[in-house]
Amino acid sequence: MKSNELINIRLNNNGTAVIILDQTLLPNEEKYIELSSADALFEAIYSLRVRGAPAIGIFAAYALYVLARQIKTEDFEEFSKEVLQYSAYLDSSRPTAVNLSTQLRRMEDLIKSSSGLKITQILEAMREEADNIYYEDVAMCRAISEHGVTLIKSGYGIMTQCNAGPIATSKYGTALGPIILGHEKGMDLHAFVCETRPLLQGARLTAFELDRAGVDCTLICDNMASIVMSEGKINAVFAGCDRIARSGDVANKVGTSGLAILAKHYNIPFYIFGPSTTIDMDCESGAEIEIELRKPEEIKEMFYTKPMAPKNVKCYNPSFDVTPNSLITAIITEKGVHKPEDIF
Amino acid sequence: MKSNELINIRLNNNGTAVIILDQTLLPNEEKYIELSSADALFEAIYSLRVRGAPAIGIFAAYALYVLARQIKTEDFEEFSKEVLQYSAYLDSSRPTAVNLSTQLRRMEDLIKSSSGLKITQILEAMREEADNIYYEDVAMCRAISEHGVTLIKSGYGIMTQCNAGPIATSKYGTALGPIILGHEKGMDLHAFVCETRPLLQGARLTAFELDRAGVDCTLICDNMASIVMSEGKINAVFAGCDRIARSGDVANKVGTSGLAILAKHYNIPFYIFGPSTTIDMDCESGAEIEIELRKPEEIKEMFYTKPMAPKNVKCYNPSFDVTPNSLITAIITEKGVHKPEDIF
Repeated sequence: MKSNELINIRLNNNGTAVIILDQTLLPNEEKYIELSSADALFEAIYSLRVRGAPAIGIFAAYALYVLARQIKTEDFEEFSKEVLQYSAYLDSSRPTAVNLSTQLRRMEDLIKSSSGLKITQILEAMREEADNIYYEDVAMCRAISEHGVTLIKSGYGIMTQCNAGPIATSKYGTALGPIILGHEKGMDLHAFVCETRPLLQGARLTAFELDRAGVDCTLICDNMASIVMSEGKINAVFAGCDRIARSGDVANKVGTSGLAILAKHYNIPFYIFGPSTTIDMDCESGAEIEIELRKPEEIKEMFYTKPMAPKNVKCYNPSFDVTPNSLITAIITEKGVHKPEDIF
Repeated sequence: MKSNELINIRLNNNGTAVIILDQTLLPNEEKYIELSSADALFEAIYSLRVRGAPAIGIFAAYALYVLARQIKTEDFEEFSKEVLQYSAYLDSSRPTAVNLSTQLRRMEDLIKSSSGLKITQILEAMREEADNIYYEDVAMCRAISEHGVTLIKSGYGIMTQCNAGPIATSKYGTALGPIILGHEKGMDLHAFVCETRPLLQGARLTAFELDRAGVDCTLICDNMASIVMSEGKINAVFAGCDRIARSGDVANKVGTSGLAILAKHYNIPFYIFGPSTTIDMDCESGAEIEIELRKPEEIKEMFYTKPMAPKNVKCYNPSFDVTPNSLITAIITEKGVHKPEDIF
């Protein structure tokens, strides 16, 4: 596939499997894989073959539909019980992004309210609901991008990290959306992409997407953010988010809080982009957000090719961190540009 | 060689070559290489086989001695001219660390003041001067380490990045010196080592040295510094330096200024360690310090094994950055603990 538009999540033609772009192979290989077993679907989320909070939500909805089709019963109670078990299993693949839970909950609610229907009818409704989640995401990304474009001008240098682009969502992306849309509108924009260790989503995915979109893009290591800001090259910092607390504290890829502190020091506005579904109404503040700890090998072994540190060294490998509301200039959702304290 | 003490720079037995521990192969291989040609000696500095500001100074002094022995003349003027050419060549290998220039200047001054002597006598004096530079560095590191220990307590968590340990100097190191010496004195210390992209000196070298010294050590990616500080694990940040301006602004491995900003935000003291020879009296402030830009492949290709980013992506790869004096709690030299504004 060499079209300019990436479709990173979709059902196969007969609806028996989810097809995804395997993001772990980028930028070296653009390979699509077909997944249908519960373990393969779980593993795709855990191993970041599909990643980005909105994309995980979409994927989980389709995955649950694919798994529901495999349940061999005509009895609603039994069907419902098994679907909820699959849903809990998928939900346990990663803890920090709220969209995974939110969209699975939406699918569960659909099932709970379908007790009068035949299983085939419920399956049809599940497929429609998963499609709805997908198309709502496309509309959400477009709206976020339009709001975001109002915050920038032609000539801007924009720093970003991790990946909140088209392949982390459905289309345009969240934090990358305004950059890609601004470029389409003819703005001269310069993206500075932090590579985002340990898994290099910035280098592998964001640089890949911006290159594909034709946006001027310079890759830096994460520890170069301060010097680049100090040189006056950055007019705004854009980041995505995995969970927003009611306080406006934001959990996102580890390093986000550091960029926010640097931006404040250099007097650069710092913006968070995400769908309103990322707001967790049950979460009062950032202190309540569970931070996923991942395995040391991600730090010690560079994609498992060669040891990069002494074999026995301890590693601390948090996947996310929390940026307090005081460091955030604004949070942009599909509904508009909000002060963090006004987010809910 | 498996002794606990690493001797990372020395002359071979007949003084015809410099033997170094090839730091590019650590931690996978502990290999010593013998260098005698001008190009090989230049390349060892450029490619970071020997690195760390004090170590480069020591190495350059021995290298100049080895090259001077190869000059085939008994005429002082011709000898002197050729040595100065070799010195200029070695000096051009890396621009940011002042020690390289300082120690080469010291060797040059020796030659300029030796016009009455025979070439063999001058060579003997050069060897002695290089030895002096080495032993002065051992004493300097010990003194810095003793001063540094007064700043910490048992139970401290100390964050560091890049490598300012034994192999970046002669023994103990500068920023690592107080940690290693404190551990020897029985303090319970916990080092948090930033891996230091792109060349991973923290992961490959500092973690290796602390492990060798028996100090408790946890490796993190550079973008995890903020979360670790936010969790209250860090009581002090220790960094080395490559050049100190008269203002107390400090050039060091890229990322140092970012750590200093984070430390200030979290109210953690931030200390710079280095010999007083790192103070550049000709440099008024950090704005005058030339920052070495290195090649994009260091970011895009992980040790040249596998592309880590799209082939054509632009990269910005500064090797150092400048930390303004306002962010530095104190600068520790062999002479004591100084406020940055009192450094010269």
